Amino acid sequence: MSSHITLDHGSGGLASQNLISDLFFKYLSDPILHRLEDAAVLPAPGGRIAFSTDSYVVDPIFFPGGNIGELAVNGTINDLSMQGARPLALSLGLILEEGLFFDDLEHIIQSIAVACEYAGVPVVTGDTKVVPRGKADKIFINTSGIGVVDNDIEIATGRVREGDIILLSGTLADHGITILTSRAGLQVAGNLRSDTRPLHFLVEKILQQEGDAIHTMRDPTRGGLGTTLAEIARATNLCMEIKEEDLAMHGEVRAACELMGLDPLYLANEGKCMVIAAPDKAEAILEAMCSVTEGSESCIVGKVTKKYPGRVVLTTVSGGTRLVEPLSGEPLPRIC
Amino acid sequence: MSSHITLDHGSGGLASQNLISDLFFKYLSDPILHRLEDAAVLPAPGGRIAFSTDSYVVDPIFFPGGNIGELAVNGTINDLSMQGARPLALSLGLILEEGLFFDDLEHIIQSIAVACEYAGVPVVTGDTKVVPRGKADKIFINTSGIGVVDNDIEIATGRVREGDIILLSGTLADHGITILTSRAGLQVAGNLRSDTRPLHFLVEKILQQEGDAIHTMRDPTRGGLGTTLAEIARATNLCMEIKEEDLAMHGEVRAACELMGLDPLYLANEGKCMVIAAPDKAEAILEAMCSVTEGSESCIVGKVTKKYPGRVVLTTVSGGTRLVEPLSGEPLPRIC
Repeated sequence: MSSHITLDHGSGGLASQNLISDLFFKYLSDPILHRLEDAAVLPAPGGRIAFSTDSYVVDPIFFPGGNIGELAVNGTINDLSMQGARPLALSLGLILEEGLFFDDLEHIIQSIAVACEYAGVPVVTGDTKVVPRGKADKIFINTSGIGVVDNDIEIATGRVREGDIILLSGTLADHGITILTSRAGLQVAGNLRSDTRPLHFLVEKILQQEGDAIHTMRDPTRGGLGTTLAEIARATNLCMEIKEEDLAMHGEVRAACELMGLDPLYLANEGKCMVIAAPDKAEAILEAMCSVTEGSESCIVGKVTKKYPGRVVLTTVSGGTRLVEPLSGEPLPRIC
Repeated sequence: MSSHITLDHGSGGLASQNLISDLFFKYLSDPILHRLEDAAVLPAPGGRIAFSTDSYVVDPIFFPGGNIGELAVNGTINDLSMQGARPLALSLGLILEEGLFFDDLEHIIQSIAVACEYAGVPVVTGDTKVVPRGKADKIFINTSGIGVVDNDIEIATGRVREGDIILLSGTLADHGITILTSRAGLQVAGNLRSDTRPLHFLVEKILQQEGDAIHTMRDPTRGGLGTTLAEIARATNLCMEIKEEDLAMHGEVRAACELMGLDPLYLANEGKCMVIAAPDKAEAILEAMCSVTEGSESCIVGKVTKKYPGRVVLTTVSGGTRLVEPLSGEPLPRIC
């Protein structure tokens, strides 16, 4: 292990996982933490409570389709949702750089309020720190969230089985490519926009309708769908087979990825839900997903097999196959 | 209101309060948030859940008596405790600067583990971001916490009454003066040390023993005892009368404050509990506080009267009196 923290350690890829397993887990031994799910589900008096945290350091703080504020609200709602929890409340921790424009802060707070209102999830506690100019970059936001799991469905990587179907609630890579092109100041034809949105309405719908058939859910943020699937493949020792032709992508996203030499499989999504579910319920789940605004472009994108245990395989449009490795190196910092 | 964020907005004093009331509350209207207590207590299935957040940006990150890691653990435990909650779990959100020494991070994570172990409160979910060199300062930590309120005692500013007694669990200003002298590189005779410690054992003890007589509790962190009392005086329109001779202080703290021209009433404490309680139970509460390690130096420091409504009055050692105004201007940034 190196003697310094590098950008890699925050990339969501291999170096991040090593940091967690080799350093954090060395000292922090709570079994719930070790499950490495997006939110902690705690046994509590009268029901299970979900609790999650995320810090947002996205650069730029304003981007087409959103800003750091709504991203922070939706992101933590989504972490709770992926555990099957109904989000109850958020906390808001702000670290502000001296000299931040007041108008910018107001715009961000306003977006937070609008996002909370839309989602029906309030901020109930908060904290603000200011650091001297040059000691942070405009604004960093931590949102933590608690939710209640009021069903007994277990959403867990360990429930994924051979034969399961992989569904995705829409297009790939919108958020990641929007941030990267905005930051680079690239003008791309078309309408690149972040897909930041809350996923709890969609999750509520499919859990109500087909609860027990839902084996696991993830929102493929940092590291993208490729890294998310690679983690599940490794954890289950099963093969995740996906088809390129089933992965929806906006034309301008595809063009921008080609222009910048980036693989959309590794780019962040901020409003997409990946579901792995029992095959006999896959069509019903797809229909339920499509019936919700946030899932209107849902597709079946793959299946779980034993072909290459522990690996992710992509069948390309031309009929070839390639292994999808977990992201390592080439970090894309400050995407969220 | 100015067009830029200034250091004042993070000082915990008047500018911070204005930022909250004039901007944040303009958009964020949840009544629980508006109570402005240290932690949100939410009605939840089967019991009330407390939920709190705090970001730590202390500079320097290592200081006599502790570091940013244990400070973050104890600080959020204390925010929960001040609501009468039994802390259940913490989240840990790290923002790391590229180039942070790995050894330093390990030291901090280790301290977090030790503090969690001592307190009996685990970190159950986390998040790590890394930003490029120069875009943060070494490490910022957010901890959020949830706790359960398993009694029906209401700890609230609104319960403070004329005649109530003010108790403090030990010496003043240890944390604040330690950080300021460390940062300035000042060598001070004696043993200046932060008082960072968890307060939930002490709180549990007094609530069990004299629950209903406890009207409100605060940990006087940023802004110190002076600002904390000024907030309560303003909110209740009662007078908080304290006596200088009853405020315990380590000799080296007093000397360092004089050297730096700082008023210990405004300096942060990170392990002190201020209790306002019914007068007939004050001696019993004091005894209970003194019986716990974290409260062995507790004292009665004042009483609630109607002498100067909405104000804090200090009777000095020489017998004079002075009004203690809420902190404004002269921000002391990055104390926690």
